[in-house]
Amino acid sequence: MRERTLVKDLAARADGPVVLGGWVEKLRDQKRIQFVILRDESGDVQVTYPRPVIDEQPDENDALAAKISTLTSGSFVWVTGRLVHDERVKLGGLEIQLEDLEIVTLADPISPIAEDTSIDKRLDWRFLDLRRTEMNLVFQIQTTIEAAWREYWVENGFVEIHSPKLMASPSESNAELFKLEYFEGNAYLAQSPQFYKQMAMMSGLGRIFEIGPVFRADPSFTSRHATEFVSVDIEVSWIDSHEDIMAIQEQLLHRAISAVKEKHGDEILKHFGVEVQVPSIPFPRISLNDAVEIIKQRGHSVERAGDLDPEGERQIAAHVAEEFGHEFVFVTDYPATVRPFYHMRHEDNPALTKSYDLIWRGTEITTGAQREHRLDVLIEQVKQKGLEPEGLQTYLDFFKYGAPAHGGFGMGLLRVLMLLLHQPNIREVGFLFRGPNRLEP
Amino acid sequence: MRERTLVKDLAARADGPVVLGGWVEKLRDQKRIQFVILRDESGDVQVTYPRPVIDEQPDENDALAAKISTLTSGSFVWVTGRLVHDERVKLGGLEIQLEDLEIVTLADPISPIAEDTSIDKRLDWRFLDLRRTEMNLVFQIQTTIEAAWREYWVENGFVEIHSPKLMASPSESNAELFKLEYFEGNAYLAQSPQFYKQMAMMSGLGRIFEIGPVFRADPSFTSRHATEFVSVDIEVSWIDSHEDIMAIQEQLLHRAISAVKEKHGDEILKHFGVEVQVPSIPFPRISLNDAVEIIKQRGHSVERAGDLDPEGERQIAAHVAEEFGHEFVFVTDYPATVRPFYHMRHEDNPALTKSYDLIWRGTEITTGAQREHRLDVLIEQVKQKGLEPEGLQTYLDFFKYGAPAHGGFGMGLLRVLMLLLHQPNIREVGFLFRGPNRLEP
Repeated sequence: MRERTLVKDLAARADGPVVLGGWVEKLRDQKRIQFVILRDESGDVQVTYPRPVIDEQPDENDALAAKISTLTSGSFVWVTGRLVHDERVKLGGLEIQLEDLEIVTLADPISPIAEDTSIDKRLDWRFLDLRRTEMNLVFQIQTTIEAAWREYWVENGFVEIHSPKLMASPSESNAELFKLEYFEGNAYLAQSPQFYKQMAMMSGLGRIFEIGPVFRADPSFTSRHATEFVSVDIEVSWIDSHEDIMAIQEQLLHRAISAVKEKHGDEILKHFGVEVQVPSIPFPRISLNDAVEIIKQRGHSVERAGDLDPEGERQIAAHVAEEFGHEFVFVTDYPATVRPFYHMRHEDNPALTKSYDLIWRGTEITTGAQREHRLDVLIEQVKQKGLEPEGLQTYLDFFKYGAPAHGGFGMGLLRVLMLLLHQPNIREVGFLFRGPNRLEP
Repeated sequence: MRERTLVKDLAARADGPVVLGGWVEKLRDQKRIQFVILRDESGDVQVTYPRPVIDEQPDENDALAAKISTLTSGSFVWVTGRLVHDERVKLGGLEIQLEDLEIVTLADPISPIAEDTSIDKRLDWRFLDLRRTEMNLVFQIQTTIEAAWREYWVENGFVEIHSPKLMASPSESNAELFKLEYFEGNAYLAQSPQFYKQMAMMSGLGRIFEIGPVFRADPSFTSRHATEFVSVDIEVSWIDSHEDIMAIQEQLLHRAISAVKEKHGDEILKHFGVEVQVPSIPFPRISLNDAVEIIKQRGHSVERAGDLDPEGERQIAAHVAEEFGHEFVFVTDYPATVRPFYHMRHEDNPALTKSYDLIWRGTEITTGAQREHRLDVLIEQVKQKGLEPEGLQTYLDFFKYGAPAHGGFGMGLLRVLMLLLHQPNIREVGFLFRGPNRLEP
């Protein structure tokens, strides 16, 4: 592979020969000098070519100049030249004096999208939309976040699992379930790894993590829902309560956001205008009951019984920002009526679960809980929800041969990215969005 | 969370108080002394409780002894006791003198599986099967392998993507495709991230990796096929040929196997009887033509035109082992007739592709190639395969606005684990197998 220097590494490099690979962002094809703005995954640089002069006039037969003139925006090229640091150059204070140009592929000159194109059309041409420097940066940030989490997990004795996405029966509910033809019968797509990550606890794996796709046939068109999304899941045995899970989760977020700030803080400020805030630990915790009361005092009456509505989430976030200077808040102890049958209940108040939601600047990014691991209690809770234990036999069997106390959370990866970068929509930070009307590209 | 010591960490710990969490592997409930073999995710340890003596007879009313007597195999317990190093104890030269026992959950005393249960029934009760120490070890090894790869990728400027598994149309072929109901229409499950990881190259992402599920409606029942499996994928821009991809892949395998040997080598020898072999770099490379000739000289005539049959794969592996003392071999330059339309062809011999398979001890674990990035050539190759360019329009559009030279590979994670641990079947090393007849648990 030929050696290739990234644009971001040019500033620290001494003047001299350099080889770059990238695509043409802009061409200014002037009479005496040609300028190419070359972009790669790390940034933009100016490439210059003064046309050779014959009799004090630019040589109209110069082959390299002619080749440059054929360049369309988007064309991929190899550039060989001389790096020169020059404070007068606006773009990063450096330029590449072109010596040779190799065209890999020429682009169709008419791009289907422009800077002001709507999000929906940009998603049609997502591969072009992603060429924006800030979009390439999003994937570097995603990589840093996931690396920070996995580093934490490995340090803390977690193992990685890959749970199946094909299931014989629904994992959590019959609603929002995708069904497929499976040889002579049918299968369903996993809505979450919930049952399987709990199974891993009964397998004695102790602590597990998984980052993988989940599928919900959710017909809604909000800024934070998709029919396929990446879920970040952990499950941990030998816990005392959901407090242990919250403690792990706040460490994970602290670790990831610290890593992002350190590695990409300057670029994020430059491209997104966002000063990354590393949250202090511990995050504030407020019981749902107290949260509803606080929100009421702020003039909003929460409409949903036992849960926060979107305005309630914004109000509690505002409260926490004012009161604690914090962007995150754990809302805890949701009533059993609004939580799944497998959430454990408080010993001293069985109407409430040992569960939480994590809210970041008004948007929920996680649900977590301690799970009920006692089979008899679990069956009782299944019945109370009006479900048939027979339909959950495979899951209930997991608890028949011994089970440790355990709990975990599921977190939406793109919600974290969206909130970190102050973006309006998960579509902006994902690779390829999937919604009720979108399966392409 | 209460502090919990893992069994594997006991040996290095001084005698004294300790708290363990695990499940009962065995109980020997003797008249004068009770023995519990306690297992956790890291190993087994002996827990002893000499019954208190009254008038030189064991106290029949001792509450702790009575509690121990109720323990069934598989029950999860907290053990508080005193660690004592004692060379006379066969199991690791140490024991825990029990001081307190907390039963988390009692197991049903009759396990549906035993040591000699067939693989199919063990898969029915996979969560119990995984309680074997060597199965817990498999997931630690998987974690180490993936961590080593991701570390390499981050060091080398790769970014992580999560490509969609829901598609509007087939990714590679109409065969072995799962179809699902998608709101008013249909969707298909991705058979590989092939098209999307190439799209990432046209997005300017440079180098990407993804570890995620793929789906094949493959009706076969071999030791190395599944309908859902974890694929390890990379795609790299600015390459000169498939040689660049092979160079990365051998580094990845070298890195992962080195990490496994260092971290788990002793345990693998103990539980699997396997001495982990770290392969030297570079791996041998043999063109398919030469391989067929070598296999012929070894007395086997390859039946498939342009590809190796299973016996051919074994023979070439045997040749490489004898000739180079190596377990791996890259077989290169497959004919265009047996490769997908998007594999690039050799400039000097368009009948052959710039592609390879990687064979480890006779089993293929990867297909890799340089991709054709020139739209006109690509369309020509589509037509030569008898495919309609219209049906591939979304994919072909990726190349319309400029494309870098690029290539990559897809590798089956469980094949790597299976071969590393000398196991007969991917079912043995996976979390939950999915095949034509298996969607449960």
